[in-house]
Amino acid sequence: MTGRTARRRILRVTTPWPDDGGGLDSSHRADLLATEEPLEIRVNGRPLAVTMRTPGDDIDLAAGFLVTEGLVRAAADIAGIQICTTDGGNAADVTLAAGLDIDDDRLRRNFLTTSACGVCGKASIDAIRVRAAYDVAADQVSIDAAMLSGLPGKLRAAQRVFAHTGGLHAAGVFSADGALLALREDVGRHNAVDKVAGWATREGRLPLAGCVLLVSGRASFELVQKAYVAGIPVVAAVSAPSSLAADLAAEAGMTLVGFLRGNSMNVYTGTHRIAVR
Amino acid sequence: MTGRTARRRILRVTTPWPDDGGGLDSSHRADLLATEEPLEIRVNGRPLAVTMRTPGDDIDLAAGFLVTEGLVRAAADIAGIQICTTDGGNAADVTLAAGLDIDDDRLRRNFLTTSACGVCGKASIDAIRVRAAYDVAADQVSIDAAMLSGLPGKLRAAQRVFAHTGGLHAAGVFSADGALLALREDVGRHNAVDKVAGWATREGRLPLAGCVLLVSGRASFELVQKAYVAGIPVVAAVSAPSSLAADLAAEAGMTLVGFLRGNSMNVYTGTHRIAVR
Repeated sequence: MTGRTARRRILRVTTPWPDDGGGLDSSHRADLLATEEPLEIRVNGRPLAVTMRTPGDDIDLAAGFLVTEGLVRAAADIAGIQICTTDGGNAADVTLAAGLDIDDDRLRRNFLTTSACGVCGKASIDAIRVRAAYDVAADQVSIDAAMLSGLPGKLRAAQRVFAHTGGLHAAGVFSADGALLALREDVGRHNAVDKVAGWATREGRLPLAGCVLLVSGRASFELVQKAYVAGIPVVAAVSAPSSLAADLAAEAGMTLVGFLRGNSMNVYTGTHRIAVR
Repeated sequence: MTGRTARRRILRVTTPWPDDGGGLDSSHRADLLATEEPLEIRVNGRPLAVTMRTPGDDIDLAAGFLVTEGLVRAAADIAGIQICTTDGGNAADVTLAAGLDIDDDRLRRNFLTTSACGVCGKASIDAIRVRAAYDVAADQVSIDAAMLSGLPGKLRAAQRVFAHTGGLHAAGVFSADGALLALREDVGRHNAVDKVAGWATREGRLPLAGCVLLVSGRASFELVQKAYVAGIPVVAAVSAPSSLAADLAAEAGMTLVGFLRGNSMNVYTGTHRIAVR
């Protein structure tokens, strides 16, 4: 397995600003890139999914993927996860608990197909919504707005890789009083969320009741769905949510916050959980 | 079909800056979100993929998806694409030219599975690289660095939706002298690229020799692969590329530019095409 960053030699070019009349400048230098490599997730010996991810926390990624896609419910459903370090080293072999398996028809229905971000791999539109096991709507947690405003700064401070590459998404789980419980990074925003969900699964913390999930980018339908399945009542994004993300959050009784940056935020759904005095 | 943006009622909250001592402020207002809805792409009556996309240019999206995933080569391979407006209206029915079809095994191999951004739906790591039909390495185009620096500004000026929602990725195809040939937007960055590839397919412009593809966000492996299959020699991104994106660009003989913003850029591969004097 390679590291989270990869060094490459680049040509750095600076052009004159318009009407500035200066010259071009170019020089070779080293640059760090976020590593992107495929991880094949296998279940009981059969290939389930290939995701392009940043190496690291691969066991969390595999466990979290299975949970947030609704294929397993808890750590007890997983007998073990082995990272295969032969053949290039990019495979996670999941063995389910005795008596459990995922039937091929279900896999085909859930995963036959797609490209692009968002809900990947649902063969029919009707099959998109993963059944959630937890009643997130009943979560009575109250989140102080000023505390919430401080979370992006805490997330950035805790990120180890982003500052070097500018290329990694982060997902963090915070307690209701603003303590960072887990942080994971990845080139794929969905992977970062799966990694924190996998952490919670391994730690026996599902559902993540009373918690806030903060993501460093946008909030898509699939991110909200993954949070829903993990039992998280409050999802906050530094950037914009999509319409379907807001619709799902409303239907699930979740709180969805967007544009959480500087000293302001937009609360799209579940405003009752945001304490503004 | 719904529009590209959706209006929602939100709670806007402003918190005091730390040590400022001011009070909280909150007010309800209307906000525009980028629309995200599923599109099912069907080929000869069978479901092929579901992608979460922003409605609009759906014919381009379906055609471009088929091309950049290596399933068809040119417009002549497609007899027609109908957008189905019943049952919620989110399906594109593609009819292939007489005698053409995509066999089920190939679909299963290519698309059985995944979640998350990046290469979606390849059942094995070996199957990830889509075979490209064009010799992009031989493309002798030269791109003026100062002209290239101006492209993000042109892209933003041409975007109709982003300014309203902050939630859409853009992909633009430019000629070597900086003329914008096509611009498409989407909540999914891969969809935006597929939409411009679909435009090129319909217009009989494949391969997009001598052209620059500019994307508003990061450059992943899959974005570079899609550009490669469409015959585009130069890919530029406003933000960071991943390691595997740079590796593929090097292998394919493409030019990959990242952090194209302000008056500077990083050239990761194919520096010979960037004219710096």
